[in-house]
Amino acid sequence: MKKIFTRSSVDPGAKENFLNETLFHNANGYIGVRGCLEEGVPNGTDTMRGIYINGFYDIIPMKQAEMLCNFVDKKETMLNIADTMTVNCVVDGEIFDILTGLVIKHTRTLDMEKGITKREVVWEAPSGKQIEITSVRMTSFEMLSLFSIEYTVKALNFEGDVRLISVHNPDVTNYSDPSDPRLAAESMRNLDVKDIYADGESSIAIAQARTSGLRVCSLVHHALTAHDGAAVRSNATEILGKQGVYTGNVHLGKGSSVTLEKLCLFSDSVRAREPAGRAVRELDTVLSNGLPYYYKKQEAYLKEFWSNCEMEIDGDDDMQNAVIFNMYELLQSAAKDSHASIAAKGLSGEGYEGHYFWDTETFILPFFTLTNPALSKMLLRYRYSTLDKARENAGLLGHKKGALFPWRTITGTECSGYFVSGSAAYHINADIAYAFVNYYITTGDLAFMREAGMEVLLETSRLWMDLGCYNENGDFVLNVVTGPDEYTCMVNNNYYTNVAAKYNLCWTLKIHRLLREAGLLGDLDEHLGITDEELAGFGRAAEAMLLPYDEHLGINPQDDSFLSKPVWDLAKTPKDHFPLLLHYHPLHLYRYQVCKQADTVLAYFMFENEQSRDVMIRSYEYYEKITTHDSSLSTCVFSIVASRLGLKEKAYAYFGDSAKLDLLNTHSNSMHGIHTANMGGCYMAIVNGFAGLRVTEEGISLAPSLPKDWNGYKFKFVYRGRLLKVAIDKEAVTITLLAGDDLTIRVFGKWVGLEGKREKRIQMEE
Amino acid sequence: MKKIFTRSSVDPGAKENFLNETLFHNANGYIGVRGCLEEGVPNGTDTMRGIYINGFYDIIPMKQAEMLCNFVDKKETMLNIADTMTVNCVVDGEIFDILTGLVIKHTRTLDMEKGITKREVVWEAPSGKQIEITSVRMTSFEMLSLFSIEYTVKALNFEGDVRLISVHNPDVTNYSDPSDPRLAAESMRNLDVKDIYADGESSIAIAQARTSGLRVCSLVHHALTAHDGAAVRSNATEILGKQGVYTGNVHLGKGSSVTLEKLCLFSDSVRAREPAGRAVRELDTVLSNGLPYYYKKQEAYLKEFWSNCEMEIDGDDDMQNAVIFNMYELLQSAAKDSHASIAAKGLSGEGYEGHYFWDTETFILPFFTLTNPALSKMLLRYRYSTLDKARENAGLLGHKKGALFPWRTITGTECSGYFVSGSAAYHINADIAYAFVNYYITTGDLAFMREAGMEVLLETSRLWMDLGCYNENGDFVLNVVTGPDEYTCMVNNNYYTNVAAKYNLCWTLKIHRLLREAGLLGDLDEHLGITDEELAGFGRAAEAMLLPYDEHLGINPQDDSFLSKPVWDLAKTPKDHFPLLLHYHPLHLYRYQVCKQADTVLAYFMFENEQSRDVMIRSYEYYEKITTHDSSLSTCVFSIVASRLGLKEKAYAYFGDSAKLDLLNTHSNSMHGIHTANMGGCYMAIVNGFAGLRVTEEGISLAPSLPKDWNGYKFKFVYRGRLLKVAIDKEAVTITLLAGDDLTIRVFGKWVGLEGKREKRIQMEE
Repeated sequence: MKKIFTRSSVDPGAKENFLNETLFHNANGYIGVRGCLEEGVPNGTDTMRGIYINGFYDIIPMKQAEMLCNFVDKKETMLNIADTMTVNCVVDGEIFDILTGLVIKHTRTLDMEKGITKREVVWEAPSGKQIEITSVRMTSFEMLSLFSIEYTVKALNFEGDVRLISVHNPDVTNYSDPSDPRLAAESMRNLDVKDIYADGESSIAIAQARTSGLRVCSLVHHALTAHDGAAVRSNATEILGKQGVYTGNVHLGKGSSVTLEKLCLFSDSVRAREPAGRAVRELDTVLSNGLPYYYKKQEAYLKEFWSNCEMEIDGDDDMQNAVIFNMYELLQSAAKDSHASIAAKGLSGEGYEGHYFWDTETFILPFFTLTNPALSKMLLRYRYSTLDKARENAGLLGHKKGALFPWRTITGTECSGYFVSGSAAYHINADIAYAFVNYYITTGDLAFMREAGMEVLLETSRLWMDLGCYNENGDFVLNVVTGPDEYTCMVNNNYYTNVAAKYNLCWTLKIHRLLREAGLLGDLDEHLGITDEELAGFGRAAEAMLLPYDEHLGINPQDDSFLSKPVWDLAKTPKDHFPLLLHYHPLHLYRYQVCKQADTVLAYFMFENEQSRDVMIRSYEYYEKITTHDSSLSTCVFSIVASRLGLKEKAYAYFGDSAKLDLLNTHSNSMHGIHTANMGGCYMAIVNGFAGLRVTEEGISLAPSLPKDWNGYKFKFVYRGRLLKVAIDKEAVTITLLAGDDLTIRVFGKWVGLEGKREKRIQMEE
Repeated sequence: MKKIFTRSSVDPGAKENFLNETLFHNANGYIGVRGCLEEGVPNGTDTMRGIYINGFYDIIPMKQAEMLCNFVDKKETMLNIADTMTVNCVVDGEIFDILTGLVIKHTRTLDMEKGITKREVVWEAPSGKQIEITSVRMTSFEMLSLFSIEYTVKALNFEGDVRLISVHNPDVTNYSDPSDPRLAAESMRNLDVKDIYADGESSIAIAQARTSGLRVCSLVHHALTAHDGAAVRSNATEILGKQGVYTGNVHLGKGSSVTLEKLCLFSDSVRAREPAGRAVRELDTVLSNGLPYYYKKQEAYLKEFWSNCEMEIDGDDDMQNAVIFNMYELLQSAAKDSHASIAAKGLSGEGYEGHYFWDTETFILPFFTLTNPALSKMLLRYRYSTLDKARENAGLLGHKKGALFPWRTITGTECSGYFVSGSAAYHINADIAYAFVNYYITTGDLAFMREAGMEVLLETSRLWMDLGCYNENGDFVLNVVTGPDEYTCMVNNNYYTNVAAKYNLCWTLKIHRLLREAGLLGDLDEHLGITDEELAGFGRAAEAMLLPYDEHLGINPQDDSFLSKPVWDLAKTPKDHFPLLLHYHPLHLYRYQVCKQADTVLAYFMFENEQSRDVMIRSYEYYEKITTHDSSLSTCVFSIVASRLGLKEKAYAYFGDSAKLDLLNTHSNSMHGIHTANMGGCYMAIVNGFAGLRVTEEGISLAPSLPKDWNGYKFKFVYRGRLLKVAIDKEAVTITLLAGDDLTIRVFGKWVGLEGKREKRIQMEE
């Protein structure tokens, strides 16, 4: 089926526009362009008009109400770098604007095979003249610095003059909303335009971030092409103040049209010594290849992408579309070079200020590790490059050894202003370690463990040793940390954190052993100061790690004191009091058994071997009753674990909530950007949930189930150099080894050899 | 002995000046004037040049790094209102300045019987001319709005012209230090001069706080008197910009002198509808009485004050002086009207921004309740007047009923920016309730309980009921609160908080019963919605209140999880890492057994009947080892409890640390203001500690001990309309009923009747 997503509405109401700015944004992992209307929105309606570069930031003050020792008081923030999307169209003196005249058609399309967005408008001016405007936009995967607009105007029922005014404005600020803690509270001017000049058909601007000193170049090149007898009368680029303004005048016959090709190139001083020079060189390349070349390359890139992660759902088009959309958005969001990562909102908006969280490693990397391990490796390498800053961060929090990765960051510096549910979320250390291990298990890439993984595992393990201690019973305990659930903070022995730390410690030993056995250790022990004694200490702590268990309820308490608190009465909580975080002081929330998101339940997915199925079932049902899913990271996890526990209906219901989160804007904030972690979680809900895929040291196993409304589903993944396809229908699961060496996998617990015929069909089980 | 405190130094070094600004400040509970040098300090040296009005504030933004729901984002801050202390002296063209010329004598004196400060300087100008400057300052207890300076210049070895330039500057800002969390981080201009004009010998200025809108008038009146043949040549007041400048020119013969009398009157719109009108009227009163009248009244006021709280230590002059100084400072600090209270730093400086904390009720009111109950009552009435704001504050923290007093405030609004060790310190509710109860027990003033106490007890009790819940064992528990020790935050069942809440609940029932029995209830039940069921609920919760006890150690753990944490190694902590709060991130501190101050130990003083002596001894020794006393509220408490537990040497050592805290600047921040709570604590360390005074429902009891270096000590106190004197020496304790009805008290556990002879001498016990 076609991977196309379309929305039509002739209602010029701005609410939908605001959400569409996110849903129809273009991004390639380097640049992101919000899907804002070329002509701008009506006055007074909400818009976040932005173009961003992944990893391009300024440092802004973050004043603390009370400045205690080593509190973070400045943060990195992703900057809006320029507005190069503005095009205005004037038809015989009447300006195109969806609020005046009549909108006869307004359709927006995201084509996920071609990698473009398209906007089609038919508009009747107050005078009765009708035009059709078609705008095609692309951020190129081939040329990461390129954002293009092809803006075509056609005279439908008249002959007349059309003027196109295209603006290049590097003098921009960021969006702000002081009422929402998830957005920047103040719109500060952080970018100074240092220079802007015209050069032939181009305008070139250099701007500099005020505190970080980073420089960015935006270059805009215009070309006007008349079709079917239209005639270009004049066109020119001029600099007006701090803006580049291109004006093209065209005479259109009835039925004829004109296309403005706007090529926007971006370059920044994180990646280039001379951003302007690079942008000019890259424009030359683009002009010599021509835009159609990049359309072709875009399609080819996506063909390759989909070939490894193809996913089909038979019998549920809505879900199919949602899943495809989510995977495409993840591709758009992921950095394609080693200077950046994947922000919580990708490059689709300014929510969470472009920061990277645990979301990347825990929720998104599993997708890439299974479909594009090279990309996963690059993202892990980026995290590894911040290890020194993580060591500094550990020091700021009083640790004498080890590294603590920041809760939110761009360059590796902690940017969380509320440490209670920020820096205190030590589990991010184990999440990152887990991602390295998962990458190794899935790819077998031991060399990368030698290069980066071992050091990350070691330094995170050292942190656990410095953080934790043995209690009088001989248990290894981790006190005063915050687990994934942000409605409970600064507790002792958060189950998730402890079990994740245990895994972290164990795998530090395993990877070290594997490196030694493979003769890859070299001087690593000496270089990193690893001693047998230290490793033995890791082993003892892992062995003794306290994993809270309540005999009476037969569940894992979220932490030492969780069960002693009263249960929040969700039934009696008014509907408009959700999400609770916007309606209750955190101190109040901390006093109840109420969860923003999966916490212990997430541990059952990631570290499933630590508890019996009975314990997990009881815990699942316990936590389900007290979880609000106010976090977008929650329902996907509840779906995965429901699948694993055989709770099929719940698995499907939670999956549905997760899959459509952004498309239906169920969290009411998709206007500020997509929820990338949920998109990764949604993928896992199918592959690791419904299909029951597990990739462990012992190999691959599957235990598929089929949601009852589906006829079947298919997906592909890569494993240690092989490409596999899994197809599930009502009768059977068919596994095909599309490429790579023979393999034996387990299906429903039985070993199945994929050799010779390379395709096996196994009966479904209940 | 004379109550005089003197410091001399001819070293113009500014460090001592900065501390002396605090130690020699003048205050009367309404206005406070830092003891800054009239001529100003040398450039580049630190000074906090300020005059303050108790309860006069502006509201300033307190931006939160991350603005979560109902976080406090603005605060009240005490304003520096004007500089009326500046006087410059020019001797034949040479300006008096301690950095030029030669300082031959520089003595500062605080006379606590006369209620004045005096500064005496003998200075030789570079030309060799010597002058003697004497400055006498007073803030009047008789006329609270009056601050006076008598500035006398005497020509010692020359004949010549002296010019006195006296400035009245209402255009001032507050002090700031961004590196210290206990001070304002930014000096903002919060006061706008609305008008300044000259009127005869006066300059009158009106200024307004920018956000609160409060207005303040400062009025300065000058009079010049020549002595011994000196001749006034000219004098005039003029307005230069926003300042009033008085210039007086005098010709002095050798040995003759001139005195500038500077009368400064302050009035504010919290207390007066027309501050300027009131200031002018009060100046008229002062002029008609003359300054000597106010000196006499000052002395009489202090005679009365000392007569009720006389305290003598025989054999330890240093301690004697320290104790007298502390009591005097408390008198200076305490509001004398119902518009304000006692700030953490009194009116001596800007530390903690003029905020009122639990310090007032817990550490200072006990002194006034025993020596000046009328003043205590007024301070309690002030707290009562903020009850509605405390109800609002409870609502902001999610409580459906009850009131929660703010952790720091001026008008009753929460001004704490870091809720973790601010608003979460719920114990302040019980501390305030305790002060009401203590006032009642000591005075028998049931009418005031009817007027205010009952409602405070009720609303605080309601808050405990809303905060707490019953656990599965049937214990009433209080979760996620912060106790007095700020190095451990957001814990379950802090021992101090729980036992204090229990007392609060019990006394709500008792006072209600007493009011009913006295026929004073009236319509109070109806008015406050009190039902028998609610009262029964209080009783059940108090009865079931969980008071943590550790069987193994036989101590009361500070909270549920305290003992599970590792013990901080104080011995290995570098000396320059104290106070820990300036060197370690709070999250790090929270993870250890380390206490900033007395917490459980404080509970043993205030609620001593809950535990056996053995438990208290073991706990005391346990907590002593892990307490840094980084808080100024700590050593006094350790002293009191040591006395009660018979640990005499410890009691004396801690008392010494407490008594001289400000005089020796042992916490290195007395420059920013005195530590009023410690001063109150120091008083209690003698009266409730060494002398073992207990005032309970059953009456008064004493169990004195004598510090081994002392020959004896004496003190007075009032109890239910009686004035008592207690004198302890090596052989005996002598109790004298100086005024009031017969009384029976317990000494060393035995009942002693104070009737007939009204003085009893009882042998000391070991």
